[in-house]
Amino acid sequence: MSKPIYLDYAAATPMDPEVLQAMMPYFSEHFYNPSATYMPAVAVRKELQAARVVVAGILGARPSEVVFTAGGTEANNLVIQGVLDQHPEANVVVSAIEHESVLATAHRYNCQEAPVNPRGTVEPAGLAKLVNDQTVLVSVMYANNEVGSVQPIHQIALVLEAIRAQRRKAGNELPLYLHTDAAQAAAYLDLHTARLGVDFMTLNAGKMYGPKQSGVLFAASHTRFQPQIYGGGQERGIRSGTENVAGAIGFAKAFELVQARRHEEGKRLQQLQGIFFNLLEEHIPGVVVNGSRKTRLPNNIHITIPGSDNERLIFALDDAGILCAVGSACSASNEEPSHVLRAMEISEADAQSSIRFSMGRGTDEQAVRTTVRTLVSLLA
Amino acid sequence: MSKPIYLDYAAATPMDPEVLQAMMPYFSEHFYNPSATYMPAVAVRKELQAARVVVAGILGARPSEVVFTAGGTEANNLVIQGVLDQHPEANVVVSAIEHESVLATAHRYNCQEAPVNPRGTVEPAGLAKLVNDQTVLVSVMYANNEVGSVQPIHQIALVLEAIRAQRRKAGNELPLYLHTDAAQAAAYLDLHTARLGVDFMTLNAGKMYGPKQSGVLFAASHTRFQPQIYGGGQERGIRSGTENVAGAIGFAKAFELVQARRHEEGKRLQQLQGIFFNLLEEHIPGVVVNGSRKTRLPNNIHITIPGSDNERLIFALDDAGILCAVGSACSASNEEPSHVLRAMEISEADAQSSIRFSMGRGTDEQAVRTTVRTLVSLLA
Repeated sequence: MSKPIYLDYAAATPMDPEVLQAMMPYFSEHFYNPSATYMPAVAVRKELQAARVVVAGILGARPSEVVFTAGGTEANNLVIQGVLDQHPEANVVVSAIEHESVLATAHRYNCQEAPVNPRGTVEPAGLAKLVNDQTVLVSVMYANNEVGSVQPIHQIALVLEAIRAQRRKAGNELPLYLHTDAAQAAAYLDLHTARLGVDFMTLNAGKMYGPKQSGVLFAASHTRFQPQIYGGGQERGIRSGTENVAGAIGFAKAFELVQARRHEEGKRLQQLQGIFFNLLEEHIPGVVVNGSRKTRLPNNIHITIPGSDNERLIFALDDAGILCAVGSACSASNEEPSHVLRAMEISEADAQSSIRFSMGRGTDEQAVRTTVRTLVSLLA
Repeated sequence: MSKPIYLDYAAATPMDPEVLQAMMPYFSEHFYNPSATYMPAVAVRKELQAARVVVAGILGARPSEVVFTAGGTEANNLVIQGVLDQHPEANVVVSAIEHESVLATAHRYNCQEAPVNPRGTVEPAGLAKLVNDQTVLVSVMYANNEVGSVQPIHQIALVLEAIRAQRRKAGNELPLYLHTDAAQAAAYLDLHTARLGVDFMTLNAGKMYGPKQSGVLFAASHTRFQPQIYGGGQERGIRSGTENVAGAIGFAKAFELVQARRHEEGKRLQQLQGIFFNLLEEHIPGVVVNGSRKTRLPNNIHITIPGSDNERLIFALDDAGILCAVGSACSASNEEPSHVLRAMEISEADAQSSIRFSMGRGTDEQAVRTTVRTLVSLLA
């Protein structure tokens, strides 16, 4: 059988050979513990710091605002638990379409979910109504992992800034932080934290051609939150544990590469996305594109084919060498309908007729055409 | 300059080329998200499961009792926070010489520290006195990272079993779990969890020629504790986050290799340890060996050279191409005297004249002789 067509880049990305090359010296050669005091260990500590500087540069942040974590899920847990543990009486507002690592964590505290419109986009004004005097954290993802809708983070930041101004007047000294999970956005969108107006940002190398379980939490220097993993005091006491040096260096290299190429690659994928949508609409009667058409990740295709059974369809596609998903891989194993589609008021029946294709570096026009052709033949 | 003599294997180990080789296919080729449903992802999930089976086999455990974590520190935090969060009114007893990741975490709860004797060994009877009706967890490391003393885990398990029997009689239904941090022991000691009698065990690939931030928490199936990182429900809901497939596979390979070689390598290092101690005592008047002479890791040399300044000495050794430590790398950066030496009633002055050499695969007799010769010349 020929090589499969991989269309699940939102679930996992192959590591870029350049990233692996950057990591290699840190496995067996420069393997030293960065906390040790001898010169070869100091050299490793400097390389780790250099990786932090690279990441900070892209984020428009200070190196001390970059916390290396073991993946995006840990970073999301760290900010939500870290802030809410500091303010046990307070509450958190999240969008209804967050990743499970935000939703499940937030719901352990006093939590409100902001609705989205049928295009899968949070309305800043609607979200603002849920923010009360006891809200310390708002968490809205930068781009959704299922339907690719890009969220209006900057507008949300402006709305929160207005609320902060009111609070200052009223003498309410509780913080009101804005966090965004940018795991799916990192390869395509602008991540300058000050331009966006966020206090926290989650990043995940595993979704941008870097190593798995290597993530970053950007935490602006004015933020206060509790560590979740205690010990040797690494990462300025925020995330103890001997540093994953190769992982951090791989993160920085992967991040540098995707951000350097994001305009070009975004444009290329946007063209493919247009072709993909056009072919689908041309050949599959009644197909519905879910999510926003305009403010959408360039690599995301999410459709409903009314009357089809998406689980059967993806197994048949798999047999035909096309790898895609019914939704998020994280919830692929459980049987619940997607909370994202439910929040978009997509019926359960339509949800069970929905598929996600997520494109990436290896995707070309040939792959798109083969996929649509195969899909059409399977539906015939 | 010739290649340095590395004598800080307790702080970090170079990755075994065989381990790296085992990991390589999972970076860019079999990179799929193990939760995805298509065949190539299912194959990855099976490989991850195979790694779990290997680890379980060595531990005499079920695969479902093996939780992959991002390192030993995370595993220690998971068990302590996980058990104590479940029983907020309860308490935990730890030895006074635990790693920071146990001590700092335990002290966030109601915690008692069991003393050690001057050889750095916990006395089971003394520890038992600290266990009261509200104790749910006892955590004693298998072997100490600073002085190499091996702890009587099995005896502690027997003492706790007697307490459990009393509790059952008295109708006290609180659990009383035994956890051991085996991070330093994994390459040299028997890790069969049932023979040891432990309910939880921490392991860390980064200290046994595997990848950094890849660890395991063994959690016996009868144990109950709360997850600390929430999300997609990976690791049976205990540690969410897309699995570090390469890391887990590297863990299993590293663990398999060190355990297969542990008798042979332990014997080899024990011989070198004897030579090391003999040479030190022969050439350095007044030198004191800290820790137990008998129940000691074969790779650990911890000495006090009265009147010397250990920080100066290790810098001078570094200059001479010999890499060693004043104590644990995790606390190398802070100025506090070692809590381990303090617990052994070693004076602050003697603590500041103490050095740790930790040997490993790359250590040979030549290295030992050169190290002692250099040390002697620096002291002259």
